[in-house]
Amino acid sequence: MKYSDPLLVGSDSGDHTKWGEVERILNMTAVRIQEMGGTVDIADVGTHQLPSGETVSLPPVILAEFERDPKKATLCIYGHVDVQPAKMADGWTTDPFNLTEIKGNLYGRGATDNKGPVLAWLHAVESYQATEKEIPVNIKLIIEGLEEVGSYGLLELTRKRNDSFFADVDFIVISDNVWATRNPALTYGTRGSSYFFVEVDGPKLDFHSGVYGGSIQEPMSDLIALLGSLLDHTGKILVPGVTDDVAPLTEDERKLYDNISFDLEEMKSVAGVKHFLQDTKEEVLMARWRNPSLSIHGIQGAFSEPGTKTVIPKQVTGKFSIRQVPNMDPPDVERKVRHLQQVFSTLKSPNRLRVTATVGAKPWVANLKNPQYVAGQRAVREVFGVEPELIREGSTIPIAQNFQEETGKSVMMLPIGGHDDGEHSQNEKISRYNYIEGTKLFAAYFYELSLVK
Amino acid sequence: MKYSDPLLVGSDSGDHTKWGEVERILNMTAVRIQEMGGTVDIADVGTHQLPSGETVSLPPVILAEFERDPKKATLCIYGHVDVQPAKMADGWTTDPFNLTEIKGNLYGRGATDNKGPVLAWLHAVESYQATEKEIPVNIKLIIEGLEEVGSYGLLELTRKRNDSFFADVDFIVISDNVWATRNPALTYGTRGSSYFFVEVDGPKLDFHSGVYGGSIQEPMSDLIALLGSLLDHTGKILVPGVTDDVAPLTEDERKLYDNISFDLEEMKSVAGVKHFLQDTKEEVLMARWRNPSLSIHGIQGAFSEPGTKTVIPKQVTGKFSIRQVPNMDPPDVERKVRHLQQVFSTLKSPNRLRVTATVGAKPWVANLKNPQYVAGQRAVREVFGVEPELIREGSTIPIAQNFQEETGKSVMMLPIGGHDDGEHSQNEKISRYNYIEGTKLFAAYFYELSLVK
Repeated sequence: MKYSDPLLVGSDSGDHTKWGEVERILNMTAVRIQEMGGTVDIADVGTHQLPSGETVSLPPVILAEFERDPKKATLCIYGHVDVQPAKMADGWTTDPFNLTEIKGNLYGRGATDNKGPVLAWLHAVESYQATEKEIPVNIKLIIEGLEEVGSYGLLELTRKRNDSFFADVDFIVISDNVWATRNPALTYGTRGSSYFFVEVDGPKLDFHSGVYGGSIQEPMSDLIALLGSLLDHTGKILVPGVTDDVAPLTEDERKLYDNISFDLEEMKSVAGVKHFLQDTKEEVLMARWRNPSLSIHGIQGAFSEPGTKTVIPKQVTGKFSIRQVPNMDPPDVERKVRHLQQVFSTLKSPNRLRVTATVGAKPWVANLKNPQYVAGQRAVREVFGVEPELIREGSTIPIAQNFQEETGKSVMMLPIGGHDDGEHSQNEKISRYNYIEGTKLFAAYFYELSLVK
Repeated sequence: MKYSDPLLVGSDSGDHTKWGEVERILNMTAVRIQEMGGTVDIADVGTHQLPSGETVSLPPVILAEFERDPKKATLCIYGHVDVQPAKMADGWTTDPFNLTEIKGNLYGRGATDNKGPVLAWLHAVESYQATEKEIPVNIKLIIEGLEEVGSYGLLELTRKRNDSFFADVDFIVISDNVWATRNPALTYGTRGSSYFFVEVDGPKLDFHSGVYGGSIQEPMSDLIALLGSLLDHTGKILVPGVTDDVAPLTEDERKLYDNISFDLEEMKSVAGVKHFLQDTKEEVLMARWRNPSLSIHGIQGAFSEPGTKTVIPKQVTGKFSIRQVPNMDPPDVERKVRHLQQVFSTLKSPNRLRVTATVGAKPWVANLKNPQYVAGQRAVREVFGVEPELIREGSTIPIAQNFQEETGKSVMMLPIGGHDDGEHSQNEKISRYNYIEGTKLFAAYFYELSLVK
């Protein structure tokens, strides 16, 4: 198998009719691991109910391991081989499912998210095998095919195998994100999230605003007032108590931000904004990574088409989400958001309000003093000759938090993708440089990990 | 031709590919008038550009008159023979284009809006012809086929024929609305309208709220603040100066509201609201008919589908409209709404705001002391044995205002449809009672008009 073969498989998990392709690449991966001398357990994770009500079988999860030496530390590597959808018509320059090298970049869906890094892990194992050196740590692998749709079945599998597969694991490593800048990074946190629906239900029917306008307290004006109470123009969340539990910034943590080679002017230009809500690089990064945020996404039920329509919508649902950071707790945040009922009572409205929450993923932060992070930093220094940037992700990646919470093991994210790889976008790529140096980084990490344990 | 024949024609003007059917019913109408002894001028009103850019020929407008006696007053009757769309799949109980009588009601698209009333006018003329009595006023007719889409070409035709067709007209009458209650009514006003687009344009792309949330001043939160500044929870418009020109309520006008047999509890039940913004019948009616109102219709560009999406929309456009009453002037209102720029400046936003207005139809109010209204009231008393309710329409019907402004003639709206006729809805109907008594009302109105002139 060439390194480009897995990229040929259209394992887009977003469309369940393509789960056959997901199973195909899982099988390719299992065969590859077996050919390398690993043992593979194809774990069944049951069924899933689609929104249509139909029940479908889930693609399995690969649990694998290489020869085990009880004297060595055990590293469990997580990766996924499913991808986001992609087609030429979306604006790709090259066939997304035929890996194409242009000027040192390898273009293709999954190149950076996450087939490329999964292959790099296998290459790192192979690099030891090729030199007939022992791999300095025991290697386990957990490879799934549904990450892009929410890792159905993985949490349950983790719980079930906690006392078997995970029992002797010392460290869990995930390489499923990208660097923040041009410099290599270790990722030690992700934000959590709760998603809210604010439904205001009014008259029996959609009314003509000419006929009823002025006599009806309109659900839309109630909703605008409710959404307007959530945050101010500086981005400050106004829901009482929601930010109370945000972990204070320690001096040690503050210093981490000094080392990140983030360029404020470049980021303004990339985002296309005249200014951010914060004035300095450090404040912008903290706003994105270690502070909570509230975004209003839209309104369902109102007139959203082009043109004009003079309607008083009878029922409208505002949608917003709150990104959460340690030590915020989604159920607690969801309870505090019910404060909207108090705001609503000041409107003296005849309409009915219903506030509901969904998602509720916890934030994750790791202990940077854990030996795993020390090993990671040393490996980066060795391969790239620079200090890694210690970064977080502002978005919500529940896997790290789930693994940490369920297994109690140390979890680290060790990205090898570049900040401009365009994961989830058109023309996703990984550079040849990142792919090769990333493989070296993983091999060096195995070695450093064996020293710190 | 039976009275049900015009209802068989699917003259839905909303779909320009059906304008052949609109021309067919205009021709049927022209033939009918000629058979009754009228002379007909089929007036060409030119072409119209569709949103697609395609230019199409407009259906003509019928200008007709019966034998003219210079000693008599001249009444010009306006009506339209196009209809709203209708199909069984929308939830009709009977074929919308096959007039069906059930328990004294005549169901069919156009039964009340406006084919039924047009036929009733012709029957009123025929009633005089049948008894070989002279029609006591000169009758002119202006019948169009594009009312439901905005009467393309009619305003220009009115201007062109001001010194010819309209020169000897004394009164213009329109029967294209319905009673407000179970009692007959004369309509002496309609509200005007301006429709606004509030566009906030921000970052280059739609962003992931996890990645950028907290660092970006989001167009949605700017827009929510802007829309929130427009009105308070009592329905009061907060845009400075917008309501300054509302005509003060005179004691004479206030008294008109006492006579309207509007039942507040019944209206609450029909609308499905626990309470209106006002406490009394009179206040609710004034809010709908003689006071301005502001309705927020929706937001374009944000997430409006079911489910969840964690997007920061890059550009969002809020849509609202202001219903206007004498002596408000749409261009002046549109200028005052630019106050949103001041509100926006307090948000210190890096985004760009653009406020634009469309529609701009003026409000209309007639002089109730005009002899036409006296004649209308006498005719109602004679046929129905009750005082007519003097009502307004809260919605915008530009025809009355356009005729009054362009020709300088007195305009009256004389509805014969019932308040529950369901114009524009499924199962549109006119009752046999309203249809027959309405015909009598029109005939009596001709007579009363000849006495007051």
